Amino acid sequence: MFESANLLHEVPKADYQAEQARLRAALLNAQYDLKVDGRFPVLVLIAGVEGAGKGETVNLLNEWMDPRHIQTCAFGQRSDEESERPPHWRFWRALPPKGKIGIFFGAWHTLPILQRVMGTSDEGAFARSIGEIRRFEKMLVDEGVLLLKYWFHLSKEQQKTRLKALEKDPKTRWRVSETEWRYFKRYDRFTEVCDPFLRQTSTGEAPWIVVPGADPSYRALTVGRHLLAALRERLDAAAPPAGAHGKAPPLPAPADRLNAISALELDQPMARVEYQKELLKWQARLALASRDPRFQDLSVVAVFEGNDGAGKGGAIRRVTGALDARCYENIPVAAPTEEERAQPYLWRFWRRLPRHGRFAFFDRSWYGRVLVERVEGFCSEADWRRAYGEIDDFEDALLRHGVVLVKFWLAIGKDEQFKRFKAREEVEFKRFKITDEDWRNREKWDAYEAAVCDMVDRTSTANAPWTLVEANNKFHARIKVLKTLCLAVEQGLERQRRKGKSRART
Amino acid sequence: MFESANLLHEVPKADYQAEQARLRAALLNAQYDLKVDGRFPVLVLIAGVEGAGKGETVNLLNEWMDPRHIQTCAFGQRSDEESERPPHWRFWRALPPKGKIGIFFGAWHTLPILQRVMGTSDEGAFARSIGEIRRFEKMLVDEGVLLLKYWFHLSKEQQKTRLKALEKDPKTRWRVSETEWRYFKRYDRFTEVCDPFLRQTSTGEAPWIVVPGADPSYRALTVGRHLLAALRERLDAAAPPAGAHGKAPPLPAPADRLNAISALELDQPMARVEYQKELLKWQARLALASRDPRFQDLSVVAVFEGNDGAGKGGAIRRVTGALDARCYENIPVAAPTEEERAQPYLWRFWRRLPRHGRFAFFDRSWYGRVLVERVEGFCSEADWRRAYGEIDDFEDALLRHGVVLVKFWLAIGKDEQFKRFKAREEVEFKRFKITDEDWRNREKWDAYEAAVCDMVDRTSTANAPWTLVEANNKFHARIKVLKTLCLAVEQGLERQRRKGKSRART
Repeated sequence: MFESANLLHEVPKADYQAEQARLRAALLNAQYDLKVDGRFPVLVLIAGVEGAGKGETVNLLNEWMDPRHIQTCAFGQRSDEESERPPHWRFWRALPPKGKIGIFFGAWHTLPILQRVMGTSDEGAFARSIGEIRRFEKMLVDEGVLLLKYWFHLSKEQQKTRLKALEKDPKTRWRVSETEWRYFKRYDRFTEVCDPFLRQTSTGEAPWIVVPGADPSYRALTVGRHLLAALRERLDAAAPPAGAHGKAPPLPAPADRLNAISALELDQPMARVEYQKELLKWQARLALASRDPRFQDLSVVAVFEGNDGAGKGGAIRRVTGALDARCYENIPVAAPTEEERAQPYLWRFWRRLPRHGRFAFFDRSWYGRVLVERVEGFCSEADWRRAYGEIDDFEDALLRHGVVLVKFWLAIGKDEQFKRFKAREEVEFKRFKITDEDWRNREKWDAYEAAVCDMVDRTSTANAPWTLVEANNKFHARIKVLKTLCLAVEQGLERQRRKGKSRART
Repeated sequence: MFESANLLHEVPKADYQAEQARLRAALLNAQYDLKVDGRFPVLVLIAGVEGAGKGETVNLLNEWMDPRHIQTCAFGQRSDEESERPPHWRFWRALPPKGKIGIFFGAWHTLPILQRVMGTSDEGAFARSIGEIRRFEKMLVDEGVLLLKYWFHLSKEQQKTRLKALEKDPKTRWRVSETEWRYFKRYDRFTEVCDPFLRQTSTGEAPWIVVPGADPSYRALTVGRHLLAALRERLDAAAPPAGAHGKAPPLPAPADRLNAISALELDQPMARVEYQKELLKWQARLALASRDPRFQDLSVVAVFEGNDGAGKGGAIRRVTGALDARCYENIPVAAPTEEERAQPYLWRFWRRLPRHGRFAFFDRSWYGRVLVERVEGFCSEADWRRAYGEIDDFEDALLRHGVVLVKFWLAIGKDEQFKRFKAREEVEFKRFKITDEDWRNREKWDAYEAAVCDMVDRTSTANAPWTLVEANNKFHARIKVLKTLCLAVEQGLERQRRKGKSRART
């Protein structure tokens, strides 16, 4: 990976000056087009060896271009708000919106490499990180992000010379600490780890560009030219025709009517008396669980999806009825805002993830993409088909952070829905719950059912299974939701308890 | 303040049941109208004595209304991200947008009261807090927030009974800790402090509503009825006619042409050679200052305003040229986004305040309201006239948090502007800097000058003065900006040093 970069590259000063002026004008123009066009964001990753000119190059880019439309982020220690969310939360919150350039120093690649070099992670964990990074970056690219990854390299000898020079100059001495020399001692080990890392995270759509870092002019021109070419290529391309990704093979049409939804027995018995008994019982248990001191290290994410009129809102209220209003948030998912539309699809869900000690109830969710957006054609087929995998990665990040994740599909029959729509139109304070759109969606009942089945089949995992809730009887549905959620929280607390114990033992 | 609330209020159960159902339907309807109408946000403050049913009432409101459109926030310990910004930052970030209801527990009133009761603040500090709260709440109301403030009260005897009852029940025992009893011992002192506090922070537009807390039905109905009445009144009112606030007396027309701007000698000498020497010198000093370890406890907010074409961007770049791109953010202020339009005017600036160890460069700023919005009529006269005071409060919050705040007005003459506009049209990579709007604004030169003079006169304070930069000569302007900023940062570091010393001494 570093064969060419280890060679001695140089650009004569006069050549540099001449090209620099041209490059600068062209980059400014491209940046302006990007801003006006506003079709996509640009994300530049800056990584590599200490002393290879990463900071200098970024400062130069800020000087060449209009720094008002560049967001530069360095990721150091995580803040407490960040450490209460999955590790990627900090990257999501820093993503540049469409029309802007974001520059990330030390993003998601840093930790896996460091941990592997220092020996605190094994081959398997390293391989898993690589897989995650590939999927994450693919998602960004699929969402339209122009992702450019620069790896600044120095040979061992070059790095030594450079660190010594920095140390000698009083103005740059602060840049070389114990850490830099400690890392330098492991130069060979870094190469052993980075070489396969770079190859395996170099994909067709987002390859690493290795930048020889010894000569300032050479590295500046390398990055500047490449950035310009990449920007221009994307800006000058016509908008890709719909389905440009190549048509994916069709999904099979089911040979019978049997599926996870149609197999449900939607009418489940429960009388009001029993309901009230059960409601009190499970609300008390949930209240108790939410006040457990260990709950302060947990967060709960609950997803409510279901047919229109299936009683999502009512079910959520029976859950929140058990909770202190200070510890939960309801998140009704409607059309994305302007700031949300300027970001990858999952951004608006990432930004709402709760801190520890809190519940977040999503009334509709990230599954919109494979439900309403699929059925109504709000996104391309390629978009919703890749969403299954992206959602899986997203939920996996939640689960590995210890989030208690529960997902409900509330199912009612077509006749029951008709009854409820009619009833809603009659009760004055419920009239706002029924719109023309609800009636229109009803006409696509079968298409929605197919989408729901695919969703359940493709996104029910061992740790985040869908709970299918037979909801023709509201009493039954509410108790099933409440009980499932309560047991999941109790399980989460139990995990915390075991973790505390095993920590106490060691 | 508490005379009526100390009496024994009760509502018979049957009456409560009957009214509760009606109230609930009406509240749901009002909430729906609020959402559809989307004209204003509702902010409900919940405060008062421990054990007086604050939590219960909020839980009830969430049960009565659609909890998906209510955001409940409790303010406990500040997170590290919060403690690196002025104290009010956490309230700004939690404000409900238009169309939603926000419920705040323990907001800005908590700390002043507690500190006064515990004797850690004196009469003067307490009075200042009250003044700040009045101004802050007035700003919210002027911005259209429907602000409702409920104070839950218990007599001393009632509170004792209540705390004992909570303690006895295993399910509520967790709610009564040492703290609650410690506060109870100071009941009389609390009354002494809260009584004048409530009176002085009760204004015509946002009075405190004292809610007797002993009887659950009574307090629920009190809050429910009042909330409904307030919502309905505001929803049913026609949009206020422009200038409804009553016309303010006019500002005086100046009797001559002399003012802070016209008095400037815009042509200041500086040759390129001197410029380059000075640039190197001040950039080096700024670079050094920004790398001082004490800088990690400082943040810098720099505001750049000026005539179109005065060279704001160029000046910013000479500053950022001295800095590491990882430690600053450029914030070009353009039209607000949809999420920003749903919030009070200053929200979009609060959200961009930097953490410690960072610079934020605002290219245009919150002064837009008293400049372009005033001149172009984008806001009402009442709006921009109250903005001077609101901006003063905002900047005061920054300064008291220790933020280094510098504000630049870059001034060029009308002829110089013409030359620059023409030149920009000719240079290809500068063409994007000149638009039809720039030419249109130019026609209103005098109106802008009057607005700038008012701005400078009314918002130049001892600690945050405007630096007027004569900018016909770009060299002079850039050096003046760089030097002023550098000296301000050095002063900030010096303040940190003295603070550290005095801390070390005690």
